[in-house]
Amino acid sequence: MSATELKDLAPLLLKKERAGGDVNPAELTAVLRVSVAKNARRKELLKIIENHPVLSDRDMLYRNHAQRYNYGIKKAYNYAKLIEEKNITDPWDQQVLYSALGEPTGVDVHRSMFIPTLENQADEEQQKKWLLKAKQFKILGAYAQTELGHGSNVQGIETTAHFDKASQQFIINSPTLTSRKWWPGGLGKTANHAIVHARLFLDGKDFGVQAFLVQLRSLENHQPLPGIEVGDIGPKVGFQSVDNGYCAFHNVRIPRENMMMRYAKVLPDGTFVEPKSDKLVYLTMVQVRAYLIESFGLMMGMATTITTRFSAARVQGRRPTGKGEFQVLDYQNQQYALFPFIAISYAASFAGRSMNQTHDDAVDIIKSGKGSFGSKLAELHAVSSGLKAWLAPHVSDGIETCRRMCGGHGFTNSSNLGHIFAEVVGANTFEGTFDVLVQQHARYLLKVLVSLPFKNDEASESNSTSFLARTKQYLDPSLRCKAQKPEDFADFRLLLQAFEVRAARIIVRLAKQMQATNNDGNACMVLMSRASTAHAELMLLEAFVKGLETIPAGASKTAVSKLCALFGASLIVNSLGDFREDNYLSSAQADAARQQILRLLPVIRKNAVLLTDAWDFTDFELNSTIGRYDGDIYRALVQRAADEPLNKTQVAESYEKYLKPLIQSDL
Amino acid sequence: MSATELKDLAPLLLKKERAGGDVNPAELTAVLRVSVAKNARRKELLKIIENHPVLSDRDMLYRNHAQRYNYGIKKAYNYAKLIEEKNITDPWDQQVLYSALGEPTGVDVHRSMFIPTLENQADEEQQKKWLLKAKQFKILGAYAQTELGHGSNVQGIETTAHFDKASQQFIINSPTLTSRKWWPGGLGKTANHAIVHARLFLDGKDFGVQAFLVQLRSLENHQPLPGIEVGDIGPKVGFQSVDNGYCAFHNVRIPRENMMMRYAKVLPDGTFVEPKSDKLVYLTMVQVRAYLIESFGLMMGMATTITTRFSAARVQGRRPTGKGEFQVLDYQNQQYALFPFIAISYAASFAGRSMNQTHDDAVDIIKSGKGSFGSKLAELHAVSSGLKAWLAPHVSDGIETCRRMCGGHGFTNSSNLGHIFAEVVGANTFEGTFDVLVQQHARYLLKVLVSLPFKNDEASESNSTSFLARTKQYLDPSLRCKAQKPEDFADFRLLLQAFEVRAARIIVRLAKQMQATNNDGNACMVLMSRASTAHAELMLLEAFVKGLETIPAGASKTAVSKLCALFGASLIVNSLGDFREDNYLSSAQADAARQQILRLLPVIRKNAVLLTDAWDFTDFELNSTIGRYDGDIYRALVQRAADEPLNKTQVAESYEKYLKPLIQSDL
Repeated sequence: MSATELKDLAPLLLKKERAGGDVNPAELTAVLRVSVAKNARRKELLKIIENHPVLSDRDMLYRNHAQRYNYGIKKAYNYAKLIEEKNITDPWDQQVLYSALGEPTGVDVHRSMFIPTLENQADEEQQKKWLLKAKQFKILGAYAQTELGHGSNVQGIETTAHFDKASQQFIINSPTLTSRKWWPGGLGKTANHAIVHARLFLDGKDFGVQAFLVQLRSLENHQPLPGIEVGDIGPKVGFQSVDNGYCAFHNVRIPRENMMMRYAKVLPDGTFVEPKSDKLVYLTMVQVRAYLIESFGLMMGMATTITTRFSAARVQGRRPTGKGEFQVLDYQNQQYALFPFIAISYAASFAGRSMNQTHDDAVDIIKSGKGSFGSKLAELHAVSSGLKAWLAPHVSDGIETCRRMCGGHGFTNSSNLGHIFAEVVGANTFEGTFDVLVQQHARYLLKVLVSLPFKNDEASESNSTSFLARTKQYLDPSLRCKAQKPEDFADFRLLLQAFEVRAARIIVRLAKQMQATNNDGNACMVLMSRASTAHAELMLLEAFVKGLETIPAGASKTAVSKLCALFGASLIVNSLGDFREDNYLSSAQADAARQQILRLLPVIRKNAVLLTDAWDFTDFELNSTIGRYDGDIYRALVQRAADEPLNKTQVAESYEKYLKPLIQSDL
Repeated sequence: MSATELKDLAPLLLKKERAGGDVNPAELTAVLRVSVAKNARRKELLKIIENHPVLSDRDMLYRNHAQRYNYGIKKAYNYAKLIEEKNITDPWDQQVLYSALGEPTGVDVHRSMFIPTLENQADEEQQKKWLLKAKQFKILGAYAQTELGHGSNVQGIETTAHFDKASQQFIINSPTLTSRKWWPGGLGKTANHAIVHARLFLDGKDFGVQAFLVQLRSLENHQPLPGIEVGDIGPKVGFQSVDNGYCAFHNVRIPRENMMMRYAKVLPDGTFVEPKSDKLVYLTMVQVRAYLIESFGLMMGMATTITTRFSAARVQGRRPTGKGEFQVLDYQNQQYALFPFIAISYAASFAGRSMNQTHDDAVDIIKSGKGSFGSKLAELHAVSSGLKAWLAPHVSDGIETCRRMCGGHGFTNSSNLGHIFAEVVGANTFEGTFDVLVQQHARYLLKVLVSLPFKNDEASESNSTSFLARTKQYLDPSLRCKAQKPEDFADFRLLLQAFEVRAARIIVRLAKQMQATNNDGNACMVLMSRASTAHAELMLLEAFVKGLETIPAGASKTAVSKLCALFGASLIVNSLGDFREDNYLSSAQADAARQQILRLLPVIRKNAVLLTDAWDFTDFELNSTIGRYDGDIYRALVQRAADEPLNKTQVAESYEKYLKPLIQSDL
């Protein structure tokens, strides 16, 4: 490259941005990453992956599904060897390392579902037999619940397990086309065992869906065992490196001891023993959701870090007056679209943290055997449903919007935004779809409403539905928001009241409609979605406001407060139909909320790069040519293009056979 | 497969849906596909592709970028041979065939940009030299405008073309890192020529950006010519089968005759001859946009056809009363999300058709040399900008939402929804990003507003801005929508007035803000977006209402009218903040609009399958396991999975090296 080619403005622009703000990113990193020490450990672990000859691979997007699967297994193997050799046993450490592989692998579900199921649902004897082996990757498991015909409706599962008393075996069958297991990760090519959900039959009587451990493949040569049809379901939008699979069972026999026996049991004589309580199972689900909510914050943080840096480094369009071009970050539309996503990343992170805290508290209560455990669990379950329902689409759409905000360079895979989107967007489907979750959430809110007025101990307890104690006051149609000018929307008490009023009114309306339709949930589903959304947004804003308290006073805190104020005003403007109902907000106030957003944009812009720097993602983690910390994005794009396999030769293989005959034809 | 396995409800459910509606899809097909004859020809041509040994290939999603590129060239070669052998010369026929390849190829831009540029910007001598060869694929061209550092801002282009009088040559250079050409389709590996946009210098003086024909590769062996660095930019979100490329020029000399000379010219003595008029160039751009708008309708039609059929064939969740499970199409949320997208497909199709008509009228005017051609062109350009800005995100987000509505099966690539999304979503970036287009559109609206009151001949002419003649009346803050009950929102005159009032008020507000900010476009950009959106939605609703007139009276027309009414009500509810400004809609009316949507859902549901059948997509075109006409979706999923390359062997190649050592370790 010649000297003139080296002249490039982009890195200078990013330096300028950092010099122009007053946020101290390290101060915020300590909050977003739990603590300075945790973050230091995280980066130490990341370095191990970055320096590893195999695990540092980031060439996945040059590969097709089959190639990605096989390379993923190579990574899984190297990961297993790494934690063994370095004796890394702490689950948090392991998770950081595994997450740093850059893509999921065929052992994802083995780690996240198969082992936890053995831990939670296998009895002691079963754990002795399988748990250590599973942790050592000697048996590799799938979690086979979903079928071709049934996903979220577990009660519709068609796979059967008939108990044969004579042989003391269950006979597993896939009796219909739609009953074959379909989708489980790792089932296609990796797993040699699976937790299989099947309908239990004892003497022809249906005892509902139970979990069984079924060996699928030989431990000698990995061939499928007799009666088992198993394979990969083919390429998908995301998870291309995972062998999501199918499986059909034809009279497959397993020992009686292979039913998960911690709760329900089948005795040798064929007696069914009812489970005592499976609330711990619920708790695992809540934990998975809390983890998901925090990771939505991280993924949104990655996408906004890349996009903010690109927007600062990229110039486009001459300024109408004076010299030079606009940075893309100068554009009002870019700020208007981008900054609320930065706010969402913070809000989701705070909300996830708070969910995790509540979860841990619940576990403590259970262990101590005291306290109103049941109601806390119900709240946690409902609230996590609502937050997941809101965040999954908002964060995945947010990532995709970020990608579009980076124009053509965002469309290139080396931006990594397409990859992040593809890996996140599946979360709209797994762990409950929007439609299922908002119903769970809304039905919980209705229950709380019915229980009004709260008893003393409930009312004093601060929880996500305390605001419903003020329902009567909020229903008053003469109630008006007190904002008089745009900046009044930066008052968090005023903001929170607006969200409480809106949520309370929609929940009450839902209650009335449920009554009017004789509890026809389906006829009220759109309203249920509105109720869930209204409460989720209230909770996110509350979590953000509460999260601010964990930041030391000063310029950094002030900057994050502005982001929080933007979050509130943006949510209002996006749902003005709700907030203006019964003129709680007047037409003029709605306009003031719009003005408030425009007022905040340049204020936040000053610190936008630093607010995303605060996540402290390494360049290796972001894996983005256009999201580099140093802003040297154009050189990175050029260099990364050299890795494209098509560029290994000047002339592609299709030339000789197809292009040459066209070009040199004598037509 | 055993007899019990064959028992499957899905096909029966789809039959039931078709039997339950009263729409005659053939009647609508004749409208959506222009005519019965056109549609018959289309299907005849599709059959040729479907029966072709190479061109019928639909295995692209098993391939990585390099493999897809090479296979795409194989398709391009076979396509070229096909039209030659069958002597298919009609451009419409060719386009139908080429579009049926299932993916773009390395000759896309050669066909859609390189050849048209020669046709429009080359003079007669140049056309004689290159045009036939290009049409015969003997020279293969790219369209190299975009650079690493500059996309939509063409004036920022850095590539230089210095005229050397002595040799009568231009010397082409890439003087900076950011000046290399970046993104052009077909540039990486396919093209041996390119239209290169470069800044013309004559005696050191800058004459702005001009177009040049540059040979890139040898016609003998396809090696890059001296001074040319060229290659592929790597994998992307979509267009994986296209070799989007980069190119840097180092003192590359081309003859003076290689500048595109139809408009601007450089004479042998180095004199620059100003172009007379390049309005025809504009017209090409408008034509591309009109085509794009119609194809948005088609793509939305594909996605909604697949999703509606899947929703009908899929059951999920037991009914609270009585027997059986809900079809997914029974769910209020599914209807609420899906049906407006069916409406968008119709609206876009009608709007695109109308755009094409106006374009053809403009061409007639030009040819006749009479009439107010300039103002018509300005309107067309602005209006196509606004429609494209609205449709690109709504249609791509709509396809992605459709995909999510199909749950896990939508996430599988064999649904084809991920592929359709990936191919469409790039349209948010190419042919102008949202931010650029809404400004062009909004600035045009401001110009029209300033020209008020219209002169007689303008006011009598019905065009997209005629409603601005009623601005004064619409600004009256005491003006109220006349709806008294939900069904009043099915009155198209009432609906259209609401959209006109909203658009007029936002445009006037924008005008005031522009004045207040001293014409600072950037400070008004969010408002410009609102103005463009408001006008685009008005135009789409108008086009839909007008489109209804082309459907013969009867049940089919009634059903489409309901869809149109839903479209209007949905748009209102999505932007209640706008419609409630100054209480044009009251809180109660806003609620009535919401009620109207819920009332329409079961009405539309009755014909939903037939309304999408009306597009008459063949199963081959849809290429979707879950979107089959016959509803036999589960069998299709199972059969398609067998094609996955990982399933060619029971044990994947990574087993021996990586899984076996883990499973059989003696740890």
